Amino acid sequence: MGNVVKQLAVLGSTGSIGQQTIQVVRALPQQFRIVGLTAGNNIDLLSQQINDFRPKFVHYQGKEANTHLAKGEYTFLSPEDIARHPEVDTVVIATPGKSGLSPTLVAVRAGKNVALANKESLVVAGRIITQEAELNKARILPIDSEHSAIWQCLRGETQAPSRLILTASGGPFLHYSTAQLKNVTVEQALKHPSWQMGTKVTIDSATLMNKGFEVIEAHWLFNIPLENIQVLIHPQSIVHSMVEFADGSTKAQLSYPDMRLPIQYALSYPERLPNSQLPRLDWNQIKSLTFELPDLNSFPCLKLAIEAGRKGETYPAVLGAADEAAVELFLSRRIRFIEIAKLVEQTLEQHQAITADPTLDDILAADAWARQKVIELASGDTP
Amino acid sequence: MGNVVKQLAVLGSTGSIGQQTIQVVRALPQQFRIVGLTAGNNIDLLSQQINDFRPKFVHYQGKEANTHLAKGEYTFLSPEDIARHPEVDTVVIATPGKSGLSPTLVAVRAGKNVALANKESLVVAGRIITQEAELNKARILPIDSEHSAIWQCLRGETQAPSRLILTASGGPFLHYSTAQLKNVTVEQALKHPSWQMGTKVTIDSATLMNKGFEVIEAHWLFNIPLENIQVLIHPQSIVHSMVEFADGSTKAQLSYPDMRLPIQYALSYPERLPNSQLPRLDWNQIKSLTFELPDLNSFPCLKLAIEAGRKGETYPAVLGAADEAAVELFLSRRIRFIEIAKLVEQTLEQHQAITADPTLDDILAADAWARQKVIELASGDTP
Repeated sequence: MGNVVKQLAVLGSTGSIGQQTIQVVRALPQQFRIVGLTAGNNIDLLSQQINDFRPKFVHYQGKEANTHLAKGEYTFLSPEDIARHPEVDTVVIATPGKSGLSPTLVAVRAGKNVALANKESLVVAGRIITQEAELNKARILPIDSEHSAIWQCLRGETQAPSRLILTASGGPFLHYSTAQLKNVTVEQALKHPSWQMGTKVTIDSATLMNKGFEVIEAHWLFNIPLENIQVLIHPQSIVHSMVEFADGSTKAQLSYPDMRLPIQYALSYPERLPNSQLPRLDWNQIKSLTFELPDLNSFPCLKLAIEAGRKGETYPAVLGAADEAAVELFLSRRIRFIEIAKLVEQTLEQHQAITADPTLDDILAADAWARQKVIELASGDTP
Repeated sequence: MGNVVKQLAVLGSTGSIGQQTIQVVRALPQQFRIVGLTAGNNIDLLSQQINDFRPKFVHYQGKEANTHLAKGEYTFLSPEDIARHPEVDTVVIATPGKSGLSPTLVAVRAGKNVALANKESLVVAGRIITQEAELNKARILPIDSEHSAIWQCLRGETQAPSRLILTASGGPFLHYSTAQLKNVTVEQALKHPSWQMGTKVTIDSATLMNKGFEVIEAHWLFNIPLENIQVLIHPQSIVHSMVEFADGSTKAQLSYPDMRLPIQYALSYPERLPNSQLPRLDWNQIKSLTFELPDLNSFPCLKLAIEAGRKGETYPAVLGAADEAAVELFLSRRIRFIEIAKLVEQTLEQHQAITADPTLDDILAADAWARQKVIELASGDTP
């Protein structure tokens, strides 16, 4: 990289990953220039970011953009037009849920470096995105801590690994009984033991659906068969994932749980940059790292996700959409925690894929169908 | 590597590392051909290896070679002549103690791939060996599990690491009080909790001198300042060492303790070869990995080694020689366990280095002086 300043667009700049991306850029001002910012809400924070970074392109979803957003010499463009703009080299996709898919595809088709924090894109459209990336020489740089760990462990290795081991904290309800899980509140589910994240990801971490998504993502990112990807509970969240090689050797990546590290790694790759804000492991404090296999009976979402991933077709799209709809119902207190898995399971059961190699339209249709189905099923359950 | 068969010379083929090297070659017969074998004793095992591998060059130290060694179409050559022979690409230095130094230097000067298990060579003559390796484009391939772990973690990384973390099992006397250490027997010291090794290395592991040697070796192998190398006790011997980078990320290499893995990695590098005899980690069995800082008061050898490494000059040579002499005295029951450290310490205190950049002759003179001094000091202690 040297003296070349990377030109970044941060899509979803006011969310959790977006804000941490901004922190990395602030810590390393010689390395990065922010040319594009987009946000779905939080006009005040976006205004502050505009004042601080003077981007050329801005998108804000709300109607009050014209009246309340900070002024500046920027142009309003859609997230997609920012993602494909020639002045942008690296697009950080930090928008949550389904809204990340379209700009991800656009960025990949434009051959950008795509620093991908959005999970759903690869879950629902992994084949399309990875094929387009290859075709257009785009590079997908994972921002998730687990995928960053795997990517770091694979660095310099010339052969495909024999196994990926994705670690999971286990979330706030590790070792809860089924009876205990029935009474889980929204407030409890939003308290993650080791990571600070957005609400959707936090609930997905509590159900382990998030880990299921990550298994599917890892499959596409690293071209590894799903059966060679194992999930391992590691409550301390220090080992972020591991890779096992043909000779039986395993490599692991470790750090305190802090998303700024995988964000910085993706943005600065292949360089590793000193950043005094990123904490080093203190081996005087770390006494024990523990591991256990996940309990698939208590956390059926993980099993559902892996099954949907194996079936392929539009099943992962249904999985992602049904989960997003079900989590919304839980957050608005219309269903209980354990019903998230039940609704996703029933929706997957009722889904009939129409093609083995779905187009984006097929995926969007399956997505819409699944969201509607979850609403129907939930209404039937809670009359 | 592909179809190119590597031509190996195994120096010290009947010792612990030598035998495990032979096991790796047996498991991967398409990859390696043994052209040279040397042994210091165990004529029966050497004979069997000659019958099995039909080497071209053999060395046996004992006088009975002519009468009792298996016949074959081989030539007797010195270890040095085998190490530099044009038909050898890779020299495995598995001879223990001081006897490894001369063939290591010869192999390095001949520009070979030097798979180095002998610790003392780099400890006493690290500067000379690494300078000669650079000059002659020889590659030093570490066989120690710790250095192999670091080497694996550095693979593909383009920047110097910020810290190396060498793990240590802690040996059989971890958490022993000073009073308990006074009464340690030879039999207890020879029972290592996790590794099967030769007697010298096993005693050095019990005193932690071995870890001190490894710190000095790591300094030379990876060109890292001694103050950036930390030792961490990890009794399970699963994490073999770790590397921390400028961005605060740490990479670790893990496997069950089995020397065949680092041996194979060194021999097959840059390829990783499947070997069904090498066990994979079973995460259903590994519940906890624990870590603690070493107790330098109970295990002064570690501190002595690091101090000698920092002082440089001929101090590391004195360290290595004094330790070898003291361990011999302990094994022959002439001194107690805790006296190993005392003799090494006193010998280092009495040493006066004569040059900042010692030649090999200076090193050998310091070595001889130190061995003599240990005998003197021990005789004084036990009249």
